[in-house]
Amino acid sequence: MWGLNMPSANDPDKRERLDRMRHSAAHVMAEAVQSLFPETKFGIGPTIEDGFYYDFDLPRPLTNEDLASIEKIMKEIIAGDSPFVREEVEHAAAHRLFKNQPYKSELIDELADQTITTYRQGAFLDLCRGPHVESTGTIKAFKLLNVAGAYWRGDEKRPMLQRIYGTAFETGEELDQYLDRLAEAARRDHRKLGKELDLFSLHEEAGPGLVHWHPKGATVRRLIEDFWKAEHLKRGYEVVYTPHIAKVDLWKTSGHWDFYRENLYSPMDIDGQLYIIKPMNCLGHILMYKSQLRSYRDLPFRWAELGTVYRYERSGVLHGLARVRGFTQDDAHIFCRPDQLENEVTGVLELARFMMKTFGFAEYDIMLSTRPDKAAGTMEIWELATSTLKTCLEKSNIQYQIDPGEGVFYGPKIDIKIRDAIGHQWQGPTIQVDFNLPQRFDVNYVGDDGKEHQVVMVHRTVLGSMERFMACLVEHYAGAFPVWLAPIQAALVPIADRHVPYARQIGHTLLQKAIRNKIDDRSERMNLKIREAQLEKVPYMLVIGDREMAGSQVAVRERSGKDLGPMALDRFIEMVQAQGAGG
Amino acid sequence: MWGLNMPSANDPDKRERLDRMRHSAAHVMAEAVQSLFPETKFGIGPTIEDGFYYDFDLPRPLTNEDLASIEKIMKEIIAGDSPFVREEVEHAAAHRLFKNQPYKSELIDELADQTITTYRQGAFLDLCRGPHVESTGTIKAFKLLNVAGAYWRGDEKRPMLQRIYGTAFETGEELDQYLDRLAEAARRDHRKLGKELDLFSLHEEAGPGLVHWHPKGATVRRLIEDFWKAEHLKRGYEVVYTPHIAKVDLWKTSGHWDFYRENLYSPMDIDGQLYIIKPMNCLGHILMYKSQLRSYRDLPFRWAELGTVYRYERSGVLHGLARVRGFTQDDAHIFCRPDQLENEVTGVLELARFMMKTFGFAEYDIMLSTRPDKAAGTMEIWELATSTLKTCLEKSNIQYQIDPGEGVFYGPKIDIKIRDAIGHQWQGPTIQVDFNLPQRFDVNYVGDDGKEHQVVMVHRTVLGSMERFMACLVEHYAGAFPVWLAPIQAALVPIADRHVPYARQIGHTLLQKAIRNKIDDRSERMNLKIREAQLEKVPYMLVIGDREMAGSQVAVRERSGKDLGPMALDRFIEMVQAQGAGG
Repeated sequence: MWGLNMPSANDPDKRERLDRMRHSAAHVMAEAVQSLFPETKFGIGPTIEDGFYYDFDLPRPLTNEDLASIEKIMKEIIAGDSPFVREEVEHAAAHRLFKNQPYKSELIDELADQTITTYRQGAFLDLCRGPHVESTGTIKAFKLLNVAGAYWRGDEKRPMLQRIYGTAFETGEELDQYLDRLAEAARRDHRKLGKELDLFSLHEEAGPGLVHWHPKGATVRRLIEDFWKAEHLKRGYEVVYTPHIAKVDLWKTSGHWDFYRENLYSPMDIDGQLYIIKPMNCLGHILMYKSQLRSYRDLPFRWAELGTVYRYERSGVLHGLARVRGFTQDDAHIFCRPDQLENEVTGVLELARFMMKTFGFAEYDIMLSTRPDKAAGTMEIWELATSTLKTCLEKSNIQYQIDPGEGVFYGPKIDIKIRDAIGHQWQGPTIQVDFNLPQRFDVNYVGDDGKEHQVVMVHRTVLGSMERFMACLVEHYAGAFPVWLAPIQAALVPIADRHVPYARQIGHTLLQKAIRNKIDDRSERMNLKIREAQLEKVPYMLVIGDREMAGSQVAVRERSGKDLGPMALDRFIEMVQAQGAGG
Repeated sequence: MWGLNMPSANDPDKRERLDRMRHSAAHVMAEAVQSLFPETKFGIGPTIEDGFYYDFDLPRPLTNEDLASIEKIMKEIIAGDSPFVREEVEHAAAHRLFKNQPYKSELIDELADQTITTYRQGAFLDLCRGPHVESTGTIKAFKLLNVAGAYWRGDEKRPMLQRIYGTAFETGEELDQYLDRLAEAARRDHRKLGKELDLFSLHEEAGPGLVHWHPKGATVRRLIEDFWKAEHLKRGYEVVYTPHIAKVDLWKTSGHWDFYRENLYSPMDIDGQLYIIKPMNCLGHILMYKSQLRSYRDLPFRWAELGTVYRYERSGVLHGLARVRGFTQDDAHIFCRPDQLENEVTGVLELARFMMKTFGFAEYDIMLSTRPDKAAGTMEIWELATSTLKTCLEKSNIQYQIDPGEGVFYGPKIDIKIRDAIGHQWQGPTIQVDFNLPQRFDVNYVGDDGKEHQVVMVHRTVLGSMERFMACLVEHYAGAFPVWLAPIQAALVPIADRHVPYARQIGHTLLQKAIRNKIDDRSERMNLKIREAQLEKVPYMLVIGDREMAGSQVAVRERSGKDLGPMALDRFIEMVQAQGAGG
């Protein structure tokens, strides 16, 4: 589930009231479930960003009708206005109270030396830390949303429970507004649009989290990559390529083996040596840097790579293109002298802002993530790196928040979180300053004093990954990509079979001008063809009939339905070509 | 070693005479080595494409002085003109004759039920099948070339022997011609130029056979890839992307696990499932094809991918970029109906010829490789696929040779072997017809009869792999890439420090026009800067002094040394831009 950026997000008091009410709604839901299924075993029932859930072990799968029945009983409980009663109990007493509830018993076991509290409303008693509202009558507008399977404690080896998601708001108006947003989010869901628009697929046979980019999705990706490369070259970057596997020893030297082990895949054996598939592109760039002696005059190097990396993620957290196991970072490593660092970071911030603007994102939040608990390098180095990032942000007049402990193990970072058209937040560009890998790998340059000095590395992406950025773009534009990114820019619609040869001729001319088009030569009615092209979010439909053939023209419609009327083909070509990146 | 395409290649009689003489020269060399090192243990001494070698187990590493001494003794033996005497011996007798020669004894063991023959000249007796020349005096112009380590029987677990390479020709003129070619080949060696021109590197720390493309090499690759993609799009291909790992089960279904096992890397474990890094791109394309029901009207699909694959190769056969463990195929899979196959294969042949022409290759040999011993699919299917390829070649008026048993396990193929500027042969485009994977994966379309039919797949590359093609290009052009592919197209040479700002301004203008340039702002003399740019094979040097600044011009020189004189910057830009692909 993705946060929908409801108004509460920025009002801590309201947020706290909502959390309390939603948590109480979860208990009321549990009470309703218990009354329908007395044999229910209860898991946990917390609040989440926009609502709440509760996990149940039930004798049979729930249906939509069950949700309606549960809602009905909840309304009765709320009308009954029973108070929530808190009680502190001894450990042994708690075990007795929940002796038929194995999941609760497991939780009690883990609370050995803590005060155990219970909350009771009506006939329902729950192990709970609280807090709750005064009484069930305080719960206002609520709605149960859906049921999904969820492993107990997220562990694939434990039982699968049924999780009911719901939400609650202080007014019916707020709830309706939320449900509208939810429907809008579902309409834009990149997993749904990805299938409808034939953009990509994932296959259980190949393995979860591994993306196959179909021609249309791959077209969008290729256009983004081409634009990305051209823009980087203009800014003094150079593009490189490095392999996807490397000996494990390299990752031991880097610290990934110690600090990042849970995300690494198991090694493969080649001639008695262990190799892993790379989780990051940096080490290949370091080896290239070190292939020659480098002078202070050569720096900075800005080496960019569209590098595909593989990282383990639990199958439960995988989510379409947004969270995957293999992804292509729009990566770059800057090797610079310490006196160049500020200028380099500032340049990346500027490039990141340019990219966001080009792709149509006006809103973003900027976070500065500091030293995590598991970290390599001294406190001094962390302090230096963090203060450099702060200086760059401040000199660029960029508002930011601190995200404590969220840095990577080798250094602090700036994260830019993009907000899409409906307020979803997405992880976007990231900039990491690293004094640590240069030390571990002895990455040096010869200074003007003739001595060796250590370089500073900047790890950065300005889109994040092609997969996640694509997910974000699809949802931002609800699949209706800007003209320059549309996989198909023009659908050619011959009215009758006799117009097909002329349509083909136009299609060929457009292709030579690199305008992506398709011809719908089926024997279907024109209106059906136009409607289908609109559903495919094709920006332009070119209707071709007798009049157009006679006048060497095309009749142009936009996907919005707007009729631009007949125009010469050259004029249409100019119109499409004028709509370049950011246009 | 690469064949140097000497005249003998096309004259079987001469070839046979040379082989016989070279094999005899190997024996003479062994006799000379024995006289220098009486304790020598002998390996084997066969002829190879352009000469011969012999493997020796010696008390110490050989030096260049040793080679000179061996040559001197060989000349004496040749002057002595001793006859080569053939003898048949019993198995037990052979063992007695070679009782102090462990490598020979091992070979004798393996000749259990065959006639064993020996050849003797002078004091030297060898286990040998022959044939040889009459006497040592028949050996004409010969030369020892170099020494290299070689494992006994190519096995890394067996002792490392010293291999002396040599060659022999019928005339001193032919030998000199060969040695000239050899020097030219060494001058063009892509491993040497790759380092000198800073194109790429390989790193023992990362693992052998894994290429790191430095900015300059990566620029050439990127330009080739961009051209490749644009050309494919024009021809109705679509570009796709698929992941680098997939579950092992897929490769069991495909047959790779059975037929191609020795080239697969060991599996990695993800959530208890085994995955391998892909040796080929085809299976991802098959999964995408099968993600929807396909109609006969949709076909053909031409799905192209610059897909990086990983295949095990023994470390002993790795060779720069030409033979590696990870490489990017310029791959495509065509899914078509049987009635479309001929047209599709013909289209690929045409595209392959266009590519070869664009990159400056005028000569190539075309091979049709037929069913190997280890193969999947019925004889009927192989027959059908092979005859289709023959028909396509014949209808396109293409001369070809049959390469028996050299097809891939799932189908026959057409291989195009490119000849570079000095006659080296390189594996280039390949076209494989495959009825087998569609059967194993049930890859179907709905025909106009409403029934399911099996598609035919064509696997093809038109360059081969980016790595091998780059090796070939570097050697073909001796590093002096055509202007459109040159990593740096113009070196800007300010005469004095006061010309540097104007040079920078020109550099910036050129970059915005996508003309790759660099400014040599060192305080060095102009002639040195020009000479170094020539060594870097930069096509143009733009000299910038007072006169050029005053006239808003640049003084242009070609890398050949030719002086084009002063010209307006715009004229220079037009001149560079006019030299596009194939121009």
